[in-house]
Amino acid sequence: MLTVNEFILRQIVERALQEDISSGDVTTEALCSPTEQARAVIRAKESCVVAGLPIAEMVFHLLEPQLRSVAKARDGDRVTAQTEIAEIVGSLRAILQGERTALNFLQRLSGIATQTARFVEAVKDFPVQILDTRKTAPGLRILDKYAVRIGGGRNHRLGLYDGVMIKSNHIRACGGLISAIERVRRQAPATVKLEVEVQTLAELEEALRAEVDIIMLDNMSLKEMREAVKMARRSGPLLEASGGVTLENVREIAATGVDFISVGALTHSVRAIDMHLEVLTL
Amino acid sequence: MLTVNEFILRQIVERALQEDISSGDVTTEALCSPTEQARAVIRAKESCVVAGLPIAEMVFHLLEPQLRSVAKARDGDRVTAQTEIAEIVGSLRAILQGERTALNFLQRLSGIATQTARFVEAVKDFPVQILDTRKTAPGLRILDKYAVRIGGGRNHRLGLYDGVMIKSNHIRACGGLISAIERVRRQAPATVKLEVEVQTLAELEEALRAEVDIIMLDNMSLKEMREAVKMARRSGPLLEASGGVTLENVREIAATGVDFISVGALTHSVRAIDMHLEVLTL
Amino acid sequence: MLTVNEFILRQIVERALQEDISSGDVTTEALCSPTEQARAVIRAKESCVVAGLPIAEMVFHLLEPQLRSVAKARDGDRVTAQTEIAEIVGSLRAILQGERTALNFLQRLSGIATQTARFVEAVKDFPVQILDTRKTAPGLRILDKYAVRIGGGRNHRLGLYDGVMIKSNHIRACGGLISAIERVRRQAPATVKLEVEVQTLAELEEALRAEVDIIMLDNMSLKEMREAVKMARRSGPLLEASGGVTLENVREIAATGVDFISVGALTHSVRAIDMHLEVLTL
Amino acid sequence: MLTVNEFILRQIVERALQEDISSGDVTTEALCSPTEQARAVIRAKESCVVAGLPIAEMVFHLLEPQLRSVAKARDGDRVTAQTEIAEIVGSLRAILQGERTALNFLQRLSGIATQTARFVEAVKDFPVQILDTRKTAPGLRILDKYAVRIGGGRNHRLGLYDGVMIKSNHIRACGGLISAIERVRRQAPATVKLEVEVQTLAELEEALRAEVDIIMLDNMSLKEMREAVKMARRSGPLLEASGGVTLENVREIAATGVDFISVGALTHSVRAIDMHLEVLTL
Amino acid sequence: MLTVNEFILRQIVERALQEDISSGDVTTEALCSPTEQARAVIRAKESCVVAGLPIAEMVFHLLEPQLRSVAKARDGDRVTAQTEIAEIVGSLRAILQGERTALNFLQRLSGIATQTARFVEAVKDFPVQILDTRKTAPGLRILDKYAVRIGGGRNHRLGLYDGVMIKSNHIRACGGLISAIERVRRQAPATVKLEVEVQTLAELEEALRAEVDIIMLDNMSLKEMREAVKMARRSGPLLEASGGVTLENVREIAATGVDFISVGALTHSVRAIDMHLEVLTL
Amino acid sequence: MLTVNEFILRQIVERALQEDISSGDVTTEALCSPTEQARAVIRAKESCVVAGLPIAEMVFHLLEPQLRSVAKARDGDRVTAQTEIAEIVGSLRAILQGERTALNFLQRLSGIATQTARFVEAVKDFPVQILDTRKTAPGLRILDKYAVRIGGGRNHRLGLYDGVMIKSNHIRACGGLISAIERVRRQAPATVKLEVEVQTLAELEEALRAEVDIIMLDNMSLKEMREAVKMARRSGPLLEASGGVTLENVREIAATGVDFISVGALTHSVRAIDMHLEVLTL
Repeated sequence: MLTVNEFILRQIVERALQEDISSGDVTTEALCSPTEQARAVIRAKESCVVAGLPIAEMVFHLLEPQLRSVAKARDGDRVTAQTEIAEIVGSLRAILQGERTALNFLQRLSGIATQTARFVEAVKDFPVQILDTRKTAPGLRILDKYAVRIGGGRNHRLGLYDGVMIKSNHIRACGGLISAIERVRRQAPATVKLEVEVQTLAELEEALRAEVDIIMLDNMSLKEMREAVKMARRSGPLLEASGGVTLENVREIAATGVDFISVGALTHSVRAIDMHLEVLTL
Repeated sequence: MLTVNEFILRQIVERALQEDISSGDVTTEALCSPTEQARAVIRAKESCVVAGLPIAEMVFHLLEPQLRSVAKARDGDRVTAQTEIAEIVGSLRAILQGERTALNFLQRLSGIATQTARFVEAVKDFPVQILDTRKTAPGLRILDKYAVRIGGGRNHRLGLYDGVMIKSNHIRACGGLISAIERVRRQAPATVKLEVEVQTLAELEEALRAEVDIIMLDNMSLKEMREAVKMARRSGPLLEASGGVTLENVREIAATGVDFISVGALTHSVRAIDMHLEVLTL
Repeated sequence: MLTVNEFILRQIVERALQEDISSGDVTTEALCSPTEQARAVIRAKESCVVAGLPIAEMVFHLLEPQLRSVAKARDGDRVTAQTEIAEIVGSLRAILQGERTALNFLQRLSGIATQTARFVEAVKDFPVQILDTRKTAPGLRILDKYAVRIGGGRNHRLGLYDGVMIKSNHIRACGGLISAIERVRRQAPATVKLEVEVQTLAELEEALRAEVDIIMLDNMSLKEMREAVKMARRSGPLLEASGGVTLENVREIAATGVDFISVGALTHSVRAIDMHLEVLTL
Repeated sequence: MLTVNEFILRQIVERALQEDISSGDVTTEALCSPTEQARAVIRAKESCVVAGLPIAEMVFHLLEPQLRSVAKARDGDRVTAQTEIAEIVGSLRAILQGERTALNFLQRLSGIATQTARFVEAVKDFPVQILDTRKTAPGLRILDKYAVRIGGGRNHRLGLYDGVMIKSNHIRACGGLISAIERVRRQAPATVKLEVEVQTLAELEEALRAEVDIIMLDNMSLKEMREAVKMARRSGPLLEASGGVTLENVREIAATGVDFISVGALTHSVRAIDMHLEVLTL
Repeated sequence: MLTVNEFILRQIVERALQEDISSGDVTTEALCSPTEQARAVIRAKESCVVAGLPIAEMVFHLLEPQLRSVAKARDGDRVTAQTEIAEIVGSLRAILQGERTALNFLQRLSGIATQTARFVEAVKDFPVQILDTRKTAPGLRILDKYAVRIGGGRNHRLGLYDGVMIKSNHIRACGGLISAIERVRRQAPATVKLEVEVQTLAELEEALRAEVDIIMLDNMSLKEMREAVKMARRSGPLLEASGGVTLENVREIAATGVDFISVGALTHSVRAIDMHLEVLTL
Repeated sequence: MLTVNEFILRQIVERALQEDISSGDVTTEALCSPTEQARAVIRAKESCVVAGLPIAEMVFHLLEPQLRSVAKARDGDRVTAQTEIAEIVGSLRAILQGERTALNFLQRLSGIATQTARFVEAVKDFPVQILDTRKTAPGLRILDKYAVRIGGGRNHRLGLYDGVMIKSNHIRACGGLISAIERVRRQAPATVKLEVEVQTLAELEEALRAEVDIIMLDNMSLKEMREAVKMARRSGPLLEASGGVTLENVREIAATGVDFISVGALTHSVRAIDMHLEVLTL
């Protein structure tokens, strides 16, 4: 179930194809007739959580609408090494021209989903959600964030437009948190949540008084976080831990009782999953 | 010296800003007046080869043409942790709105350049060039490949359009390598090189007879590569080693005498360099 | 202070100019030399709240970057009939070519701001906010909503992307409100609010149990709304009155104690303010 | 019979959908599976002349090409309150995501057609045509003007490109009407008509001598218009009355004998027709 | 005096540069530093009417806004072989990257203007205007037609949108010319002229009765044209001769007394003027 | 077999249609119902090599996806005058609206293919290839170059991005050919060939020492070319003759033994082939 706006997705995929093909695939156009048919399979070469199959299929369909693709797995499936995850039957040209672009999407997104799933697994005993950040590859945000959801994470705001996040620079520019909150309550849409970033417990105290929806604890120690959770319990906002989160320390952070843990590395430092497209019969 | 088509670069940067800002930065537009000025610095928080500074500057200039940016380093410079690499003076709004997008470019590209430089350093005693591949983040290819050059690597073809690469599937579709070469010599532009991918020494033998420009040795053992170098010496084409190259084995591969070593991980599995933008005075 | 993403604004303004000029202004290009200079003033011909001046200025600047415009009023100012609200000095061609497009924006947006201000004035004795809806002119949403803010209103969500609004059809598709809320809490960004639309007090009861952020009372009677306010007081969500709101009944609705009143007619049935551009000296 | 360039129409509709959906419909994507089917009807809730049905259908088809829509009325039909004007059967997601955008088009265009039809009806005893102007919603001109035709009106020029309209500022810039006409006869395409705007009978006299195709009588009194009709009878150009036309005075203006009456309010001050989409079965 | 919509012009020029530069000028980016300055001149190598200088200048300015260009001639000037028509001073990179694109525009447009001027000269003793057609290079219509005006010709309609042209197929589809005219008088904008194409004097007779604005005499003999002029004199429409017009027969056609002669070859078969860009000092 | 990137082709064709139709075909939309069907044939009115049929078909299919086109010839076929080359059956509107645009492509491309075939025929006794240049109609390069291939020619580089061409200005900017070559070998992709332009035999001597892939002999005499061929034989690069090539002298140039002859006039001075679309039955 692809939960991504297909209009935007199509633009991203078309741009990726344009970037690779540009004035033409000089090899394939010279060597393969447009009527030649083939069958190909895509295989994961290592264990992973698959993400991006509908996008890979779109790559091939944009090149050749008649081409038939059969997903052998669904986004979110955990597969073992050598699993065949998709089969494509149709124009050899389309297969050869789309191969690299399809794999580039699939390998990156599966990389994100797989790593997210590791974080989610690590904290599964706690009532906490793993969030992503805006540290995504420029131009690929909705896909990077889709892969996080597939891996079991939840999205923080998609961009500057769908959530208020008040940082210390904003507060200084406004002359104080209270005045910032007031202004936001006039200007920002009534439907987005207000989040404030705090670095100390004193700042947290003030944010709690301002009755915001979410408070981000920026680079706090475990001890501070535990204290923050206690303080916040009285008045209700959700707490987000942020900064320096790794697979090693995420469980301890979860144990502090925060509601969200956001992890930049999920999308800024992706290890691609090894995958392969094999042309089987001509 | 930015060696990237600025037309395309501008489109990439505008898209990245659009993606992040979309209908508007609901926080900053509510809280900062458009006339407020500020000064900010960008700092590398770990040692790296810097890449992407002109792109980060473009981010801010697109948001505010009057903004003044001062590069404190140049792309290709190797800097230590905590080095200030750029200063930006101008509209606070533009600084806050561009911060994440600028850093997303800078951290990724510096990550690519830094890793490329490690590979280049590892083989510096050999007359070999480190090449990239088409395994780039969709939509960012010319930037990913720019960062490889900044790191001292060289680009393989940019896409399907600026180089002929004949793979086994092409050969089968054509009825043999010789006939493939003939067709390419009629269809492909006279200015692009012909490269053939071979998996065995037997295939290499045939490729050598066909007088192509480059031969890619796909996943060969070190022993096969050494043999390949010997065979090719007689007739001249350049040899490219490809498949499974790591920082651990790259030196051994270089020692076989190949001309190029291509490394997909340079761009498909990037670790972002930690960087930070600090707003100093308001 | 223009609180609109200028990237998107520029696209809207460029499209409007393209639509009007297309292959060329056959009259002005034939009759006015590109070097001819002129001075023009824009005048409101009836009393209104001005909105759209920076957009009108952008129209002229896109046609002629050297052109100088002087705003004589600011967006949000209430002006009387015959007030001069802007002066433009520069290329006669640009003035004549931009005139209609600039006025089309200014007259529509001032119409929206003026009408919004009437609603805001009508309820000024109550702690309630006037909201707009998504019933805007296709392609002009961010401007229509900007004009609402200028008139003293507040924006409901900008689109389907920056707020969750669960309607009865969604609930039926999910098998109940509770299950819908659960799914949304996994899928939707953590930063957008959850709003539920209810048509009866029974539905309200259920929504209150689900602990959503906002509840929209769809076409309820004044009596039902008063009851709803009482019921909601216990558990906290904001209440939005919606449906059939007019200048005649808005005060009574406000008196029920709801937090928001949303008014579709603010943007779906706009009366343009009469305005005029006069070329003064040639 | 849709007499609008479908290329341009599709761009307008896609932009409207993009504006509303942007990064994704966070509610529907979370709550409705992409395979869920539904049936919906669109109903006019007040008597009107319908306009925009093919555009509303395009909205849904762009979201889901398989969706089936059945128009129950045709553009130009006069329907009574509660008439079902279209039925849509297909993906529930597409129906919920397209609902507001489809209605925004349909309600505006039906509003224009309905009001135009009132003007046309008011002057039906006279050989006069009701014209629109360029006072349209930016970006929607070809649709606004389509709705005018559907209501029985006729279009004045679509933009600055498909008709010459010489105003007093042009004449002054040229040193006289005769010289302006001469220049236009060299520069403007041979296929567009020449129209001159006059404010006094003296100016009319001069325009008649210049043998233009159409003369616009700008804000003249009924008496002046009658005199103008007499004067023009001798030499043939068409006369257009313009300025301050309302449903109250349009018949008197028609009675003066002018050929065209142009009415800005048809498109600059539109009252949306109340319409509703109901999801019937899931 | 450039009488072309600069918005559209800029898109055409940007596309031309994109087409040539695409992912980057691999030679110049490798060899010339971005700070290197140069001076270049553009020279006509044969006698011609110059057209396109502002477009050539735009090519260079888009590549480098700081670059300074000095036109040494103006569009419409007749220059002799070896005349220097423009000087460019600025970034060597921009000069080398823009050279071919600038010349491609300049050579084509000067070719069109020069050939048009020959036709205009040939008929200068007659009160006739040389018209172009829609037989232009796809994508370059407004420039091709601009060059015709520069050469002294006049434009027929720019496209299907700014003039009515009723051909025999239209008439048949409508059931007769009278009914076609009636329909057009309801549907087409009131500001475009009505032209009818006739192939025989009988058809002309009918068209004259229908009181259209222009009648095109399609491939008539000189004798028929003379007769047509006599017949039309009585009722007034303009006559356009079309089909098989050459420099050899155009004078005879003009002598028949027609008002317009349209020449497809002006734009469908262009001989480029030989021009050259020379880089003078580095 | 269309060897052109269909993504780019579609954009070119859509732009051409937009340019011609813009806000709408005012004649056809008024006169032909959208359901009216027709049959049309396209006929070459003179002997030619056909090129562009798939592009003409795309024109009609973009206007009406249901339309059926039957190619009666294939690109590359040599046909005699009056040959029917395509039949189109479908919506009369689409046929009338697409007619001019389809013919504009077909006539230009067939003109290029036909002229190219004459050059190829003239040198058929020599082992030489006829190349095109970058002197193409702006925006149409991939089509112009496609037509050259259809005529039997081969493409030189498509743009500045897919081949290195070092000219004297580059060499001067670099301080010598050797240093230029070195820099290019670091910066340019490893897959594009290096070509150097030389004007004298002395420069050739130097280029031969630099071991480039291709050497362009710019405007050399036949005697110099023969000498160049002798000199080059020793070390291997391909030689390209360029400058002032005509059908009259091309055979003599071929006889010198060069490998390539490039001809700018193939694309910069195209004579359109006379073609005609006839609507047969209504």
